[in-house]
Amino acid sequence: MKYDTIIHNGIIVTVNRNFDIIIDGVICIKNGKIETVSPGPADRVAYQSENIIDARGGIIMPGLVNTHTHLPMTLLRGIADDLPLFEWLNDYIFPLEAKYMNSGNVRIASLLGCAEMLLSGTTTCCDGYFHEDSVAQAALETGIRGVFGQGVIDFTAPGVPDPADNIKTAGRYAEKWLNVSPLIRPSVFCHSPYTCTEATLIKAKRITRSNNILFQIHTAETKNEYDMIMSKHGVSPVRYLQKTGILDEMTILVHSVWTDEDDIRIISEHGSKISHNPQSNMKLASGIAPVPEFLKNRITVGLGTDGCASNNDPDLFKEMDVAAKIHKVNLLDPTVMDAGTVIQMATIRGAEAIGLGDQTGSIEKGKDADIIIIDTGSPHLIPIYNPVSHIVYSASGSDVRDVLVAGKLVVSDRKLLSFDLNTTLDRINLLAAQIQKDFLTT
Amino acid sequence: MKYDTIIHNGIIVTVNRNFDIIIDGVICIKNGKIETVSPGPADRVAYQSENIIDARGGIIMPGLVNTHTHLPMTLLRGIADDLPLFEWLNDYIFPLEAKYMNSGNVRIASLLGCAEMLLSGTTTCCDGYFHEDSVAQAALETGIRGVFGQGVIDFTAPGVPDPADNIKTAGRYAEKWLNVSPLIRPSVFCHSPYTCTEATLIKAKRITRSNNILFQIHTAETKNEYDMIMSKHGVSPVRYLQKTGILDEMTILVHSVWTDEDDIRIISEHGSKISHNPQSNMKLASGIAPVPEFLKNRITVGLGTDGCASNNDPDLFKEMDVAAKIHKVNLLDPTVMDAGTVIQMATIRGAEAIGLGDQTGSIEKGKDADIIIIDTGSPHLIPIYNPVSHIVYSASGSDVRDVLVAGKLVVSDRKLLSFDLNTTLDRINLLAAQIQKDFLTT
Repeated sequence: MKYDTIIHNGIIVTVNRNFDIIIDGVICIKNGKIETVSPGPADRVAYQSENIIDARGGIIMPGLVNTHTHLPMTLLRGIADDLPLFEWLNDYIFPLEAKYMNSGNVRIASLLGCAEMLLSGTTTCCDGYFHEDSVAQAALETGIRGVFGQGVIDFTAPGVPDPADNIKTAGRYAEKWLNVSPLIRPSVFCHSPYTCTEATLIKAKRITRSNNILFQIHTAETKNEYDMIMSKHGVSPVRYLQKTGILDEMTILVHSVWTDEDDIRIISEHGSKISHNPQSNMKLASGIAPVPEFLKNRITVGLGTDGCASNNDPDLFKEMDVAAKIHKVNLLDPTVMDAGTVIQMATIRGAEAIGLGDQTGSIEKGKDADIIIIDTGSPHLIPIYNPVSHIVYSASGSDVRDVLVAGKLVVSDRKLLSFDLNTTLDRINLLAAQIQKDFLTT
Repeated sequence: MKYDTIIHNGIIVTVNRNFDIIIDGVICIKNGKIETVSPGPADRVAYQSENIIDARGGIIMPGLVNTHTHLPMTLLRGIADDLPLFEWLNDYIFPLEAKYMNSGNVRIASLLGCAEMLLSGTTTCCDGYFHEDSVAQAALETGIRGVFGQGVIDFTAPGVPDPADNIKTAGRYAEKWLNVSPLIRPSVFCHSPYTCTEATLIKAKRITRSNNILFQIHTAETKNEYDMIMSKHGVSPVRYLQKTGILDEMTILVHSVWTDEDDIRIISEHGSKISHNPQSNMKLASGIAPVPEFLKNRITVGLGTDGCASNNDPDLFKEMDVAAKIHKVNLLDPTVMDAGTVIQMATIRGAEAIGLGDQTGSIEKGKDADIIIIDTGSPHLIPIYNPVSHIVYSASGSDVRDVLVAGKLVVSDRKLLSFDLNTTLDRINLLAAQIQKDFLTT
């Protein structure tokens, strides 16, 4: 047969350069790639494939790209909420991580995180954590695409008891994963400018430069961080990173909440990218990043959900909805962050932000077939005047019916095909019961 | 049998005065009312009913209370987004309402709105629109509980071509619905202090006082409204309503975004209630209401989703999530609007805010059995350490499996039992196609 898979009978929101929308569209896929995108009906081509997916009038769009996750944190979902930041970190997150985040648990929790993402329409993620080898291994089993960054921090961390080993560990990890799978890209995730020394930052960036991989770093997340860097280095976090030589096109600055005009100009000039995580920034009371200013300065901005301890789920549809609304109210302007802009951030801009813009993020000839189908038959998606506004303001992750990654169907009719989810859920429940007993009741 | 229905095998979040949570709870229901709430197992009582609902380990909580809706606006969902406020109103909403909001269409669109609410766990709403007779009629068919307010405005409105008839129409409507059903309470909905004259406000309030029913009014929603009232009357919108004699315990002020210390003290002193609609206020760029200040001043605050033209769906779980987060980031304090407070706003406080605090909003002996069951088996709700934080930060309307209103099962296993939804959806789709053809393409 000429094509491996044909998708038809849906509204294609391509998110290509013209943001073309094809009301009754047909997509032909061969060897994991999109060969043609055209108006229907599919009769002309249907005989050329044995594998026809009927979108049943739904919305067909690129798989979503989550530019900031800490997948293993699914294990700690909802364990500590509504607390002051330092109590949350020091009394809960850090001791829990130290006690429970071994490589086995990291793998199980990452399986759950990947399952949630695939089921809610995210086909690509950019993760940063420790024991990242186990995260990447889990991702590989689930069929998701992603960039997976080994954590670097100048403290004791899960899997890296001696911080003197952090760079070596990250280097070994990156080399191991460089050519394992076309779906998995390694990366280095420096925790932040206030938890890594300048020497560590420089060495970590050297690893990513020599391997041409992504450098991730939390930057200017809170006022407290901004003040710390200011008092220690006399400049803002962004300017400090610039001086340290960290900023280039393969660096993604996560959060970038406390940034001023100068910082924004610097980020733009260096071609660095930003991951915007509005729900995490809201829940942890970090602040509102000046995203409309980033966009005016032509910075590539992707959306991220952050980890489950601060969100508490990786549904990018919710994140789009909030991203569209928070800047409107912040600037008292209902026209900023329109639905189309937000969809781009959750797809093509996100892909570009993590170095995968050539492979994914839009439905175009030559791209990998990372595609999702939204079931528009539920009452809350009826009527439909505008699919673009529907995606952002009405749909949620639970409306995603089918998901393909690189042409392979991994979710069909809301069921995960790629691995045995129930076994994973059972293991998570057992682990959680143990944590509840050991940690929360003492 | 002693009981009509018994619900068991779930975590009951009672939202009673002590916010009691019963890990393995049993609820016995008779004649639409809750007779007992106790710890399980259910063996002791199971033989006393033929109708046993197994919550399968899920969360059992009071049905949610949506304190501000415009149900017929479901027909216009997503028809105009991301526009400047006056263009949105004058070029889209007002002409569309004038052309399409006849009583027949209002009824069909309200059926859809009620279906969405029930399916996403809302068992009570407080609505305000024109042709409200048709809204109440639709609600009655669907089995939802609610307060339904006939709109009053000093302009031509759907069903009230001559504004001189607005008070008479509202009065007739209120009298008609006073004793039709225990689930339906009539109300009067004055549009706002800038679209109703003082004389109209006074006459409308007189109708509600003489019938002991709720008076609803949009108040201090936008800066523009605040400035208009200030320049016309020399006082803030809240103080203007106080001077006009509108404020008492049966008045609900919707939005109350542009309110200062004095306004808040006045609202508190008069015992008036507030409906907080964070997503609408964000999307329309109205502003952020000072809700933590309202709560400090012991004002009863309920949550609302507003109409589908400004949200774009009535899922109160999303509204809880955003309500919890927006004030944290606004005040840079992660401890404000904790999950428990937000759940109270979406249940018992909402019920109190619309005059139904004795009937609904909590799971307690003597209350009507308005109860929902959340399926906690989906990956994004696993693991579960804290059901309270789960409800606000992880669950969504699509996780609601079963819904009872006054003891009657109206949603079972995510399917609506009370009326034929498919016929309604077909009629909505036909109507939308006509609107698309007539209005959007000319």
